Amino acid sequence: MDIFSVTVLGSGAALPTANRNLSGQLVVIANQYLLIDCGEGTQIQLRKNKISIQRIDHVFISHLHGDHFYGLIGLLSTMHLLGRTKPIHIYAHEGLKKTIEVQLEVSYSKLSYQLNFHNLKNESGVVLVENKHFCVESIKLKHSIPCSGFLIREVEKPRNILKEAIEKYNIPVKDRAGIKKGEDFQTSAGTVIKNEEITRDPAKIRSFAYCSDTAYSERILENIAGVNLLYHEATFMEDKKARAKETYHSTAAQAAEIAKKAEVAQLLLGHFSARYKKMDLFLNEAKAVFENVRLAEDGIEYIIE
Amino acid sequence: MDIFSVTVLGSGAALPTANRNLSGQLVVIANQYLLIDCGEGTQIQLRKNKISIQRIDHVFISHLHGDHFYGLIGLLSTMHLLGRTKPIHIYAHEGLKKTIEVQLEVSYSKLSYQLNFHNLKNESGVVLVENKHFCVESIKLKHSIPCSGFLIREVEKPRNILKEAIEKYNIPVKDRAGIKKGEDFQTSAGTVIKNEEITRDPAKIRSFAYCSDTAYSERILENIAGVNLLYHEATFMEDKKARAKETYHSTAAQAAEIAKKAEVAQLLLGHFSARYKKMDLFLNEAKAVFENVRLAEDGIEYIIE
Repeated sequence: MDIFSVTVLGSGAALPTANRNLSGQLVVIANQYLLIDCGEGTQIQLRKNKISIQRIDHVFISHLHGDHFYGLIGLLSTMHLLGRTKPIHIYAHEGLKKTIEVQLEVSYSKLSYQLNFHNLKNESGVVLVENKHFCVESIKLKHSIPCSGFLIREVEKPRNILKEAIEKYNIPVKDRAGIKKGEDFQTSAGTVIKNEEITRDPAKIRSFAYCSDTAYSERILENIAGVNLLYHEATFMEDKKARAKETYHSTAAQAAEIAKKAEVAQLLLGHFSARYKKMDLFLNEAKAVFENVRLAEDGIEYIIE
Repeated sequence: MDIFSVTVLGSGAALPTANRNLSGQLVVIANQYLLIDCGEGTQIQLRKNKISIQRIDHVFISHLHGDHFYGLIGLLSTMHLLGRTKPIHIYAHEGLKKTIEVQLEVSYSKLSYQLNFHNLKNESGVVLVENKHFCVESIKLKHSIPCSGFLIREVEKPRNILKEAIEKYNIPVKDRAGIKKGEDFQTSAGTVIKNEEITRDPAKIRSFAYCSDTAYSERILENIAGVNLLYHEATFMEDKKARAKETYHSTAAQAAEIAKKAEVAQLLLGHFSARYKKMDLFLNEAKAVFENVRLAEDGIEYIIE
């Protein structure tokens, strides 16, 4: 089974600290590299973690607060300097294209490859990327400006026909596609063989949801229900609940509440305010609500099982 | 005597590496902080080196290639997030203002303090900042786009009148300003006392010149003659002399040649291409031409004696 993982490049909010860079995550799925958010320093983090930037073909920018996109122009420039020719796809809310174009213009730059911008709508469930291995959908978050989360999940795989069933019933090639989809098989003698007798379940599909930045919002539950890994922002702890509400961010307890209600397998917290130093308190606050939780750390790869 | 120093925040060219960030230097003079260039990651380097960003009131951007300014928007945003109210002065070639404004606009940001943009002309000797302690002047460099270096020097100080001379000749207050400027003193009896008898030399003025990015250019010699510290780019070594010329950069030997001809006290090389790993070769190439040379390293403070 191919690896499906998330490497956190930056777990800090708003401004970088000595230990936490700004938002950025590299998702590896079906041997493809997807970048989610690109705060200042993201390209440096990619390099430090020995991740080949040229393998990134899709960049998703959740929203246009600077800590989520000010690093994009530098990354795109470096791709150019290193001789990229492959196009890149960038999914973002309206306005990003203009900033990238102005920066290229004043720096007298013309990229060696094509930028394909795709405007995000402020809606859930819009399919952004879909191929035979995985798909990426938008999640409408609740922030002070239009902001999208992303659901990345493997595509439902066909059922596996048992080798011994093919031999036993002499199943013709023409019938196999239907059986893989779950159809029963009728022998030449007219006997119907139940699908579950001749197939086994495909590998379970795995999924990851990225929800940052957002206030507590139950609207997202249907989008993230049952995911294997939920990255949810937790800028604050409950001591700053009012501040969280006011700035459209979440507390650790709120993120955990979402994880619990959505029945996800594991929760990863991040986007921590620089004011907090005792991170075990963060973990404890979340664990009191939802047990299987981890705190994001820069440079750590989280495997989606 | 106040400290006069340069802290290198980034010594790499074009793209960041694991050891070298992009161009940025903090100059401390007369207790004031000046920032020269601001590549991506500069604010992170400032933080790592425990330099208070709010003390920076002047930012000089040599030219509008991305590795010299893509970090500015992030720095300005962080100043805002930390509650800055003091205005900041930014000296740059035309175009920078537009990129900053577009980025603020699309990120729905309004800064808590004023940005004062000053357009650089493509000329040498333009005084950008002048106060009773120091002045900053432009140096016209030779690059593929308009590019300015900066000469930062202390202001000539007045001569010191000897305490014993004041007593001996009973020098009235009204005559002292003239004496400090170098005038002789005439006693009430009409005797002329030579200035050198009653004063001593002021502290020597110190100076620093920043020359990056630039091809080899003797035109700058008159601007940088005799400076205490010359930072000169050395993107390449002589093995890539043709490439240096083509891209309007310098080799280590060329930078050393400039230092020698300008009779500077010390040379600091930087803006190294990421292709070079054996940096002692760089040093040797320069030393063969000019002995007192150092290689810039990120996070090192160079004192101007």
